[in-house]
Amino acid sequence: MNERELRELPQDESLRLLASVAMGRVVFTLHALPAIRPVNHILDNGDIIIRTHLGAAITSAAADGDGTVVAYEADAIDPHDHLGWSVIVVGTARLVRDRGEIERYSEMLRPWVFGNMDHVIRIRPEVVTGFRLTPLGDPAPSTDR
Amino acid sequence: MNERELRELPQDESLRLLASVAMGRVVFTLHALPAIRPVNHILDNGDIIIRTHLGAAITSAAADGDGTVVAYEADAIDPHDHLGWSVIVVGTARLVRDRGEIERYSEMLRPWVFGNMDHVIRIRPEVVTGFRLTPLGDPAPSTDR
Repeated sequence: MNERELRELPQDESLRLLASVAMGRVVFTLHALPAIRPVNHILDNGDIIIRTHLGAAITSAAADGDGTVVAYEADAIDPHDHLGWSVIVVGTARLVRDRGEIERYSEMLRPWVFGNMDHVIRIRPEVVTGFRLTPLGDPAPSTDR
Repeated sequence: MNERELRELPQDESLRLLASVAMGRVVFTLHALPAIRPVNHILDNGDIIIRTHLGAAITSAAADGDGTVVAYEADAIDPHDHLGWSVIVVGTARLVRDRGEIERYSEMLRPWVFGNMDHVIRIRPEVVTGFRLTPLGDPAPSTDR
């Protein structure tokens, strides 16, 4: 196995990579314990938009007017050569309440799971961290893997 | 797009699926905020073993004698048909301190990232949740996807 190294990515490239995949994982706190759920997402004007079902733990937290801080992670790392990228966003999650926005996002973002996914959450990125796993000593990392 | 549904998996199947992949994401709390890092893992006698570098945030938390509660997630969800599985483990992470165990795990678990990954963390599962995304109404889910 060849050696690899981590290279940090600029914020704009990190968000571009995040937008290039359909799925990520939202990380939040539930009953004072760390919790994580895989979801599909879209990016809209720099915000991460996800849908969740009525009972999902994040909904009640994000329904608070101040929102709740969450992390959101997506990655594309090849299981064979172990090269790829990972992006981690920390930001504030809020329930989308505007009826028109809910309808628009519901059209744009079809949940992968059948069920009552009628709540829409917007995550506004505050800290964006991205890195790419590249072969060690690779002098010219490509912008796409 | 066909509709899908979530099916809960029994704990033993969930851990078997987790062991079948090389990579997951460890979820913890850092400065009172949710944090997540992708890592590669092995399962050893029901425990999740990961390696991390000296400065990694989880190391200092898990170095506490009582350990720290983390979540660990892995999934294999097809980006095209959106079928697959996800497993979420909540458990206590502790730094492995026994020299012999550290050497054994260091042989078994090669980090994907070059660097000083000389800390080994053991996560003992307490709550294991697994689900499979299956076509809606599929009467006979296969045990492998």
